[in-house]
Amino acid sequence: MPEEGSKNAAARGLDKFISDCRETVFLHIKNYLGRASDGLPPRMKRCVFDYPYRRGKALRPAMLALFCGACGGRPAGAMRLAAAYQLLEDWGLGRDDLLDGAVLRRGKPALQRLYGAAVTVNALDMLHVFVFDMLASYCSLTPRLYSEARDLFTRASVVTLGGQHLDIEARSIPLSRFTPRAYYRIAARKTAFYTVTAPCLLGLAAAGKGPEEKDILAYGEALGTAFQIIDDVLDAENDGSGSFGKMPGNDIMEGKRTLVAVEAWRRMTGRARRRLSDFYSMPAGSRDPRAADSLRRGMLASGAADACRARAEELTTRAQSILERRLLPRMSGPHARMLREFSRLLEQRKA
Amino acid sequence: MPEEGSKNAAARGLDKFISDCRETVFLHIKNYLGRASDGLPPRMKRCVFDYPYRRGKALRPAMLALFCGACGGRPAGAMRLAAAYQLLEDWGLGRDDLLDGAVLRRGKPALQRLYGAAVTVNALDMLHVFVFDMLASYCSLTPRLYSEARDLFTRASVVTLGGQHLDIEARSIPLSRFTPRAYYRIAARKTAFYTVTAPCLLGLAAAGKGPEEKDILAYGEALGTAFQIIDDVLDAENDGSGSFGKMPGNDIMEGKRTLVAVEAWRRMTGRARRRLSDFYSMPAGSRDPRAADSLRRGMLASGAADACRARAEELTTRAQSILERRLLPRMSGPHARMLREFSRLLEQRKA
Repeated sequence: MPEEGSKNAAARGLDKFISDCRETVFLHIKNYLGRASDGLPPRMKRCVFDYPYRRGKALRPAMLALFCGACGGRPAGAMRLAAAYQLLEDWGLGRDDLLDGAVLRRGKPALQRLYGAAVTVNALDMLHVFVFDMLASYCSLTPRLYSEARDLFTRASVVTLGGQHLDIEARSIPLSRFTPRAYYRIAARKTAFYTVTAPCLLGLAAAGKGPEEKDILAYGEALGTAFQIIDDVLDAENDGSGSFGKMPGNDIMEGKRTLVAVEAWRRMTGRARRRLSDFYSMPAGSRDPRAADSLRRGMLASGAADACRARAEELTTRAQSILERRLLPRMSGPHARMLREFSRLLEQRKA
Repeated sequence: MPEEGSKNAAARGLDKFISDCRETVFLHIKNYLGRASDGLPPRMKRCVFDYPYRRGKALRPAMLALFCGACGGRPAGAMRLAAAYQLLEDWGLGRDDLLDGAVLRRGKPALQRLYGAAVTVNALDMLHVFVFDMLASYCSLTPRLYSEARDLFTRASVVTLGGQHLDIEARSIPLSRFTPRAYYRIAARKTAFYTVTAPCLLGLAAAGKGPEEKDILAYGEALGTAFQIIDDVLDAENDGSGSFGKMPGNDIMEGKRTLVAVEAWRRMTGRARRRLSDFYSMPAGSRDPRAADSLRRGMLASGAADACRARAEELTTRAQSILERRLLPRMSGPHARMLREFSRLLEQRKA
């Protein structure tokens, strides 16, 4: 089984690449924040440092570095930029949790549960200022790359915040009237761009040349939407026994219009269906966690999660096909090969 | 009375300068936002545009332009920069109102009362991204000035957010233990830097040369603290009959540790004093507006507001003395003369 053997080597190579990225990115964040936060009030400093120090999986920085390498650039030279992008992600998670009234993040209480809403809003604004300052003052970018990177960070923020707005508005739409089409439109804007497209475009900018933007947009939208669907599925499957880091039924408690919820509603009938849509129409904050967990089990039993996984697989296959036909022909080297593994990894992740 | 006559001419000149500034700044904000917001969801766009379109008094942009002119620069060339600074202020007001649970702003309901907290948080983050993007993509700055301006916007944000954090923490300190010293420390950081110091430093950067930074810091701290004290006094004096644009007793409702509250507590005795400090120790959201208004009248009757005005006058005199001795000798022209009027205008404003 030489093919199987070589596959494993590629997967191991990617794992090592991501875990090295994660170390380096965290080091840069630590260096930058230590410097920038000098003189801040102590409790504010703790709140600003909190999420960055919980250390994400660094998938987005790894994507940026991989893409840079595959386009012929030096991934090592893009690590500070990748670290600034991770800080943007840490800020984004904080504001998501605040908006969603989230309970847990990476296995610990969400920021606003530790510091209160006022201190959190304030510290997050500080973190947001730091992201753009890190880009300008720490990343040692050439003027050309600085300007391109700044524009891409801005674009990623504008697209994502627009998607977030649609997501907020969607929560007042009855589940029965929320369509998969609306879901895809929101996911493309809220998740796909900042998760896949922007890291790829930043990697391309750092390398200087590579595939065309329109092909990267198509790739990012397919893979990033698959990523969001898997996120929804993992949340629906989370019974609290694994290392998912959130409460069982989290998305349901927050009233998120996920593809799993839409697919479950379509599969259910009669009282079960009504129970589901009624729960989604309740005002935030009035939902009972046990009822949410029972709905979560009902949604799984309906086969909704399996249907969503199948959809995510279709989208990943589409992304792989764009990668093979339109991106890889303009790339080369070991990082290009690792990109093939990356899509599968996003789809098959457990947390 | 030739002196009186020339004074009036100078004051009229300043009024004209500020109102021209206000027009130009708004035009630039309108141009930039119109361009940047293309493709945003309609309700999000309305929320992003809302505060900028209520149009502030543009005192900070005017200060920036005046300082630039007095240092020998061209105020007309600094108007886009001044407009970006006004946008930073509009963002800041939105987040202040959100944090404070404010009811009114410039005579209309506060943002979160019109759009809900989630849409508001999201739109404010968008506005924040726009501020830094406007600086980079709209202001037509030379690379040197862009880099200096960006650093000053960052510095203003970091200092102000740090002050805001201290202000939030202060709201859990009993009024009896909150000192004028703590008040001045917070006001210097929360208000003075972004209201006076940063506009002056930006004006200096736009002109290229002028007084020393340490002298501007001293001037800004004195004048900006006076500005905050007058803000507190105007809030305490607001009985709803004028054009102040906020509810009577607004600061008291929000539990703000103002100098008026501190001075009132020091002047009161027995039951009145206890009533005051008990009200300030109540949890936010549980305070009764009528009780707040009655306390407001009690605070005025105690002579606290007059004592605060006297303190603001002392600080303004100190600022004027720094202006005369350390700033004006390195300045010249009509804008330098208008700066003399500006301090009095900040102190004598009615809203």
